[in-house]
Amino acid sequence: MTAEEKTTFNIDKTKDFGSWFNEIVAKAELADVRYNVKGFVVFQPWSVLSMKEMYDLWEDELEKHGHLPAFFPAVIPESNFKIEKEHVEGFAPEVFWITEHGAGEKFEERLGLRPTSETAMYRMYALWIRSYNDLPLKIYQSCQVWRHETKATKPFIRSREFHWIEAHDVYATQKEAEQQVIEDMEITQKCLFEQLGVPFMFFERPQWDKFAGAVKTFAADCLMPDGRVLQLPSTHYLGQNFSKAFNVKFIDKDGVEKYGWQTCYGPAISRIFAGVISTHGDNKGLVFPFSIAPKQIVIVPINFDTDSGVKDKAVELRDRLSQRYRVQLDLSDKRPGEKYYHWEMKGVPIRLEVGPRDVQKKSVVLVRRDTGAKQSVKEEELLQAIKKLGNEITENLKKKALKEFIEKITEARTIEQMEKNLGEGKIIRTNFCSLEMSSAACAEKVEKELGARVRGKRADLNEQPAGECPFCGKKAGVVAYIARQY
Amino acid sequence: MTAEEKTTFNIDKTKDFGSWFNEIVAKAELADVRYNVKGFVVFQPWSVLSMKEMYDLWEDELEKHGHLPAFFPAVIPESNFKIEKEHVEGFAPEVFWITEHGAGEKFEERLGLRPTSETAMYRMYALWIRSYNDLPLKIYQSCQVWRHETKATKPFIRSREFHWIEAHDVYATQKEAEQQVIEDMEITQKCLFEQLGVPFMFFERPQWDKFAGAVKTFAADCLMPDGRVLQLPSTHYLGQNFSKAFNVKFIDKDGVEKYGWQTCYGPAISRIFAGVISTHGDNKGLVFPFSIAPKQIVIVPINFDTDSGVKDKAVELRDRLSQRYRVQLDLSDKRPGEKYYHWEMKGVPIRLEVGPRDVQKKSVVLVRRDTGAKQSVKEEELLQAIKKLGNEITENLKKKALKEFIEKITEARTIEQMEKNLGEGKIIRTNFCSLEMSSAACAEKVEKELGARVRGKRADLNEQPAGECPFCGKKAGVVAYIARQY
Repeated sequence: MTAEEKTTFNIDKTKDFGSWFNEIVAKAELADVRYNVKGFVVFQPWSVLSMKEMYDLWEDELEKHGHLPAFFPAVIPESNFKIEKEHVEGFAPEVFWITEHGAGEKFEERLGLRPTSETAMYRMYALWIRSYNDLPLKIYQSCQVWRHETKATKPFIRSREFHWIEAHDVYATQKEAEQQVIEDMEITQKCLFEQLGVPFMFFERPQWDKFAGAVKTFAADCLMPDGRVLQLPSTHYLGQNFSKAFNVKFIDKDGVEKYGWQTCYGPAISRIFAGVISTHGDNKGLVFPFSIAPKQIVIVPINFDTDSGVKDKAVELRDRLSQRYRVQLDLSDKRPGEKYYHWEMKGVPIRLEVGPRDVQKKSVVLVRRDTGAKQSVKEEELLQAIKKLGNEITENLKKKALKEFIEKITEARTIEQMEKNLGEGKIIRTNFCSLEMSSAACAEKVEKELGARVRGKRADLNEQPAGECPFCGKKAGVVAYIARQY
Repeated sequence: MTAEEKTTFNIDKTKDFGSWFNEIVAKAELADVRYNVKGFVVFQPWSVLSMKEMYDLWEDELEKHGHLPAFFPAVIPESNFKIEKEHVEGFAPEVFWITEHGAGEKFEERLGLRPTSETAMYRMYALWIRSYNDLPLKIYQSCQVWRHETKATKPFIRSREFHWIEAHDVYATQKEAEQQVIEDMEITQKCLFEQLGVPFMFFERPQWDKFAGAVKTFAADCLMPDGRVLQLPSTHYLGQNFSKAFNVKFIDKDGVEKYGWQTCYGPAISRIFAGVISTHGDNKGLVFPFSIAPKQIVIVPINFDTDSGVKDKAVELRDRLSQRYRVQLDLSDKRPGEKYYHWEMKGVPIRLEVGPRDVQKKSVVLVRRDTGAKQSVKEEELLQAIKKLGNEITENLKKKALKEFIEKITEARTIEQMEKNLGEGKIIRTNFCSLEMSSAACAEKVEKELGARVRGKRADLNEQPAGECPFCGKKAGVVAYIARQY
């Protein structure tokens, strides 16, 4: 996109989310879908600046909870995949295989590009862990993974390469591993909702929708503006499934050799980015929470070609604010109005305007992206005002998003009611027979008759069912949630 | 390695660098070579914590100079590689090829794992750049690259997967692109020497040793303790070679369509890590510069099982110092002496000892890793003392390393003299015929007769030759440097 093009954005996010999303990805230069490998996109600076902040956020939180970073290889020998039977069944169909190098020299064994790293990491864990002294082992890596998806790809939401963090932990006891799953959910709450303002529910997934090889899968679903849920971080209680397969053993305090208890947690940063922009964006374009905005403040000088000192002041403010914030100074030839539209579309939380009169008064004007509210601020109070405003913007986005999210959760007792609610873009709370494999037939009905999926039961609440499962008429064993999904 | 093992380290780095390096990589848990794909290693937390700081250092510097981050795909279609002829000749022999996915479904076209990203990025640059308004374009990405090396691999120094940053810039004019090469060298000086204390020389490489597709290659060589040089960041002036091949064009101010002028810069973080630990390490193990140490301070409490308040004080200090520094508190059962050896081997710059008497006196003891010097510091002066000490440690390491480096550069006029000097682990400064292809025969003599390589001429100095080339007897056209290499 050249600078000459019109930069205004105006698409109704709620009415036509599909267009809104595709257009904002292109207009704001978030990702370019024209890369010449199917299912792969180029993530452009405006999204990457933000994703880097998101990486820092999660990595800090993981390290605060005792995780350490590592870099494991991106290639995994085929034999590693075959060690855990359920895991290979789940992932093998999606693996990209490296079979040769150079002029076509074949490898003796195919090498898979990691679709996830259990089979790379746990072989090493088996070498590293000897005694209870080596536990817990809590390691994460920030990396890309590759999955040959057959579903239609969409930038950030689903592509054949995505950017994530994966944390893989080993404990001496089942109880500690179960506690780790709760810690993962708390980290998610802290990062995804408290910092990024994306409301979600953590579900324990039904047995037919688990991570391949896990005992239990817990996943956070957020809601996109078209009423379909998007799975964000998931955490898996692996029990001893992998430790037995990969021989991850330790000598316990009692001198007895035991298998470790494992968990893994996978916040997919590039996908979470989709959740953030879809949740907060409006008809004018992007709206970023303050802490992860690619640029937090844009300075737009007014009439800066005159001798008014405006340009010098704008540069001075840029230099001063850059010590604390990510700041953009727009000295381009465009008219101020054009600049406003452009940076609103780009989602910069605070616009700082400074003109000749402001210079004289030693003040500036601050404009909020989320509400459009303007205020004049004395220069000496600027840092304080920005700090306050940054917090207010994030808090306002959270509040608004949470309200919208809660309004979309509805109770339904009949299939007809569900169909109507799903058509309105809602998440359904309902009685359901069970989440065990014995209820897979009901789940199939949900898919066939409603085009929706059973997302599981709330992981944070102990909700009690009362009544029958609307799909089989049996006594309900669980309160489940049903939604259409990405 | 279990906690019970002996943690002392004692290998003479200068006399037996090979063993020193391999042993410290294992003992300090920097990397594990037992991963079951040849040429691939697992980078463990103790190196990754430090490499993450190094990434931040370079990324900040690149962004300060106007670069923006992006994420390009790791897979590149074979047809992209073929666009620039010299480039494909240079890299094709080393590419890992993805040929199939899932149960063996073949891709129509082979996909290469990026060995470097020119051929992924410049196709997109051709789409992004339209007019002079879009220039300069300065983009970097932090990622891994994969090269099927035939040389013996060694963790950090050379492996089939390494971690780097690559910056790819496009300018409207040749002059600006040439200036970018100088900027890249300045960034290298700032990060590699000023911050990490690794001395190096920037050479313009001979024409027979260029990056595939470049007009000119400039590379920083540091010196390993065994007298072999290690190539660290290199920057390449690409001229219009790639822009013509990839159609990277723009409409200039004069309305004329022109090809862009390009450069690329590639600091290989995992390899620079090898340079850092090899430069500063000593016979007791690792010695980290303060700013990139995995942990900057280790707190060792003395007699903390008594009612002396030592443990509480140690925890309090850990919590306080952690707000500013990366701090390790060692509350393990080991004797203090054992802990000292262990953390010295791990290279932690500052050890903080606190015992019952210190608690009473409200003071602590600080011990420097680089010199072993001890000092008692009042608690209220602690933050200031650590800040000062951190700077002193880095400055001392720089000074020491620079002195050693300069002593290793020697002048030689005859082949016999060179042979002697190379045997002593030195870098040779000599008259040489030229760095053009016409001198390739002399370069071959250097390789065959001396087992060494012509590294090029100094990029930062305009050194004038006086005399003949010792290899062909012709009048020397250049002052060149010769060394054995990794």
